Amino acid sequence: MSFSPLIQQLVTALRCLPGVGPKSAQRMAFHLLERDRNAALELSAALAQAAEEVSECQQCRTLSETDICELCASLSRDRSSLCVLESPMDVVAIEQTNSFAGVYFVLGGHLSPIDGVGPDDIGISQLLERIAQGEVKEVIIATNPTVEGDATAHYIAEQLKRTELKVTRIAHGVPVGGELEYVDGGTLAHALAGRRLL
Amino acid sequence: MSFSPLIQQLVTALRCLPGVGPKSAQRMAFHLLERDRNAALELSAALAQAAEEVSECQQCRTLSETDICELCASLSRDRSSLCVLESPMDVVAIEQTNSFAGVYFVLGGHLSPIDGVGPDDIGISQLLERIAQGEVKEVIIATNPTVEGDATAHYIAEQLKRTELKVTRIAHGVPVGGELEYVDGGTLAHALAGRRLL
Ligand SMILES: [Zn+2]
Ligand SMILES: [Zn+2]
Repeated sequence: MSFSPLIQQLVTALRCLPGVGPKSAQRMAFHLLERDRNAALELSAALAQAAEEVSECQQCRTLSETDICELCASLSRDRSSLCVLESPMDVVAIEQTNSFAGVYFVLGGHLSPIDGVGPDDIGISQLLERIAQGEVKEVIIATNPTVEGDATAHYIAEQLKRTELKVTRIAHGVPVGGELEYVDGGTLAHALAGRRLL
Repeated sequence: MSFSPLIQQLVTALRCLPGVGPKSAQRMAFHLLERDRNAALELSAALAQAAEEVSECQQCRTLSETDICELCASLSRDRSSLCVLESPMDVVAIEQTNSFAGVYFVLGGHLSPIDGVGPDDIGISQLLERIAQGEVKEVIIATNPTVEGDATAHYIAEQLKRTELKVTRIAHGVPVGGELEYVDGGTLAHALAGRRLL
């Protein structure tokens, strides 16, 4: 069965969404075209606007359409506590636990020499500059509990060895080998509370 | 946790897709923005183009961006056999069985007096005009095996009583109460082969 070119193009484009297979993409395309063209146009506009206007927060590197994200701009956050994460989704996951009142720094990945990802690619110098400003007293490293995430955590801890900073790593409850964003809020809250010195 | 307005708008818009809950929408939005902006822009364009340019085939009422769809325009289809279906997705489902060489007519729904859906709303007069052109010898009614689908099938059969046409309904193997598009190809092929006179 071949769809008409525009429907085929839409089905193919929908496959770029994570977790969407050929059958789901088909169902999505027909659902939108048969029942909800306004929704299709709204989604089209939202995608274009976000792809064009959402950039990175200049302070924490999370996704943001403003130079400084809402969290970094907030006066109610504790700037002495800095949580270092791999991705913007992890910021969402930690925020949803309501158990952290500090600020964040998003690496945007982890060290991976095999893939040619070095310290510069994950914003380490920007992180060190941020810390050098003096407000931060504790750095909580919450990279994923994977081999790469651990290696990245140790690299960062090494860089901060000569400072007076408390450097901790979230620990209890985070399943080894997992991805932070899939961990439930209660487990994450425990992992934060049970953090230990590196 | 509140996302920035443009990210929130994108997450909300993604929820219009069937089967996409809040957590999947979030993951989709971040995936596109973190890793695949080109895909986001391509999906945006595909959605807009399809929503604006895909209309209905003037002969069979399936989704098509041309006045006459590829199936209706094909010279290799048997125009004496007309299969009547509820939705364009059902055309795809039947085509994928490779067991039907005729042409289609898409009602775009079923009779539902409670919801104010009458014969005019599902193109019955257009269907009768199509049949009156004389090429059709058999009408295979493949509306969903639900109460409304059955009622619609009987209504159409009633309208064709005074004609010489063979009017059949797909039967064997289609699970009662189900939706045609979820039925596997083998079952659908059997249901077609085992159709009976109405
Ligand atoms: Zn920020
Ligand atoms: Zn057609």
